[in-house]
Amino acid sequence: MSTQPETVPAASLPLRPEIVGEEPYGAPQLDVPVQLNVNENPYPPSDAVVASVAAAVTEAARGLNRYPDREFRALRSALAVYLEREAGVTGLDADHLWAANGSNEVMLHLLQAFGGPGRTALSFAPTYSMYPEYARDTSTAWVAGRRAEDFTLDADHACELIARVRPSVVLLPSPNNPTGTALPLETVRRILDVARTSGPLDGTAGATDAADLPATSTVVVIDEAYAEFRREGTPSALTLLADNPHLAVTRTMSKAFGMAGARLGYLAAAPALVDALRIVRLPYHLSAVTQAVALAALAHTDELMGQVAGLRAERDALVDWFAEQGLDAVPSDANFVLFGRFADRDAVWTRLLELGVLIRQSGPDGWLRVSVGTPEETAAFKAALVEVLGA
Amino acid sequence: MSTQPETVPAASLPLRPEIVGEEPYGAPQLDVPVQLNVNENPYPPSDAVVASVAAAVTEAARGLNRYPDREFRALRSALAVYLEREAGVTGLDADHLWAANGSNEVMLHLLQAFGGPGRTALSFAPTYSMYPEYARDTSTAWVAGRRAEDFTLDADHACELIARVRPSVVLLPSPNNPTGTALPLETVRRILDVARTSGPLDGTAGATDAADLPATSTVVVIDEAYAEFRREGTPSALTLLADNPHLAVTRTMSKAFGMAGARLGYLAAAPALVDALRIVRLPYHLSAVTQAVALAALAHTDELMGQVAGLRAERDALVDWFAEQGLDAVPSDANFVLFGRFADRDAVWTRLLELGVLIRQSGPDGWLRVSVGTPEETAAFKAALVEVLGA
Repeated sequence: MSTQPETVPAASLPLRPEIVGEEPYGAPQLDVPVQLNVNENPYPPSDAVVASVAAAVTEAARGLNRYPDREFRALRSALAVYLEREAGVTGLDADHLWAANGSNEVMLHLLQAFGGPGRTALSFAPTYSMYPEYARDTSTAWVAGRRAEDFTLDADHACELIARVRPSVVLLPSPNNPTGTALPLETVRRILDVARTSGPLDGTAGATDAADLPATSTVVVIDEAYAEFRREGTPSALTLLADNPHLAVTRTMSKAFGMAGARLGYLAAAPALVDALRIVRLPYHLSAVTQAVALAALAHTDELMGQVAGLRAERDALVDWFAEQGLDAVPSDANFVLFGRFADRDAVWTRLLELGVLIRQSGPDGWLRVSVGTPEETAAFKAALVEVLGA
Repeated sequence: MSTQPETVPAASLPLRPEIVGEEPYGAPQLDVPVQLNVNENPYPPSDAVVASVAAAVTEAARGLNRYPDREFRALRSALAVYLEREAGVTGLDADHLWAANGSNEVMLHLLQAFGGPGRTALSFAPTYSMYPEYARDTSTAWVAGRRAEDFTLDADHACELIARVRPSVVLLPSPNNPTGTALPLETVRRILDVARTSGPLDGTAGATDAADLPATSTVVVIDEAYAEFRREGTPSALTLLADNPHLAVTRTMSKAFGMAGARLGYLAAAPALVDALRIVRLPYHLSAVTQAVALAALAHTDELMGQVAGLRAERDALVDWFAEQGLDAVPSDANFVLFGRFADRDAVWTRLLELGVLIRQSGPDGWLRVSVGTPEETAAFKAALVEVLGA
């Protein structure tokens, strides 16, 4: 007698082993009065920006039956102009620029081009929690070194680890998320020097042992998603591009530009590096509408960026306020502040949510992260936190 | 004396071996009068659709400083309503739907969830030339069986190959690109039955040989990008969804809907399969603007789809016309026709281009593919081809 049932066998999806039991990434999207959890810019686009976006999309819509410009040269040129001005550099043009649907997708392109099986991506924890997901989704091994107690990066430790691990990609946010810590340019310079020959030893015909293999470079990605918020005196890594063909500096329109809903991340790098991304990008990955929206927004750079100075001042005042409350707060070059520490951060987070203020449990245990909002939102957050801590 | 130069070593990018020497995918984007090369819908959106898109984007633009709805439930519901009506099925809701920036990205999500190192994706050539690129970009092995001489798929061959290779994903376009060949539902049914237990044998603790390993299912992807153009009597694979949790049916708004520039691909599948894609998608991958544009377009379904009947008639007439010219043309269920054969297809393609008509070199040697355009575009194509072949 057979032990096999006579019914049709059940289908069992062949999930990739790495994602079995995993959850979709993302902070809770809750409808509460004060949302300070995902480092958005609190200021919506002005009527003038909305009108420009609408006009640009109306124009693009008339040709939506056609595929978009696969190379989006106009947008790449406009981004180059913006970066030259923001970072005080020269020599950038469309060939140095790349863009995708959020810097998430820019990072995916980087790891699809330079990562993959048998290769390693490396960063230093605590850092942006999406980095290991980019690695996982491209079957790239993931190694995390450590940041110092104050969340700065020790250059000796970083250089030693990179030389030892030989990663194909190093992901270094500046400022770091969730700590807000920027990298001194000298640290970036030292890492770039080590990275010049610390990449994977690719097998070549005739090589019999590792010593015979030519070293490649490690691609160093400086993630400047929050760079526009950095304090005075912190130059962008864009100033190092000219001498470093293995450097990529990523940016986004989601933060300072206040365009998180438009999903436009981008990077600047040597043209040869950009060309590698063109191979792995999906054709027509940037819609005609996305290109039109981003171009329209870039034409309002002054206005959209006008809030940045205010947000920086608000951020600095918030760091000071935490100290006045007897709390720890990490000095920040971003539009958020990591503060603590709490024996039960989950309880603090939950109580704040009950009071209508949504922030983020992020970083090492005991710490919480709050985005810099409008003065009204910040005031509501402070009042709620005082109430929670007083209870 | 050292043979090493004393200068700084040159940076050498650690390109993933699979992409060394590769070129970015895509047909030439040339500005010629008659563009029949990428199977676009030749009819631009009407003024009414443009106005709706503009209004929807204006509304979305007011909140662009915030991240978009990560789960895009409203769009998924609207797509479910559309599919139920188009395919004559019931029981679909948002949980069965998924969408991304073009069906390119939908396919990437499928291979990120179910492919990867040690796994295989399978299709039958000649077929869509992006399929091996999705596999390459996710480090998934690629196996291509063969279609018959007339480009139909032999069900015995397909089932045998799937059972032998044990792919984690099978990609089956219906209709096929570039041949226009639809799959009989009976073939899909047979493949689904084999696929129920033909997936990878995943290692589990205690299993000492393959016979002890529980079989998973192969995910069967029926790529219905062109399904709205199919001839009468060809049901959609959506009718098989209810009984097949390992089936995914992909669609796009690029073709029948005339929204190639908006980049909106989607699929329907069992909720458990959709949940796997939610794990590997990049957070906020669909912009607020893309969601707004797609929703606005879906509200004009009748109008946007109104051209489909005309394009099908134009397509059938074109197939007949090729026969009248003594040429071979493959019966087509899509908005394009594969025709030939030419001893030197490159020469024919180039001469047509010189006459202002851009088509595509696609499929086996000797064949060319032309998209169905407006009556005027088709007439221009015919006249040009007659001139080229008469010369």
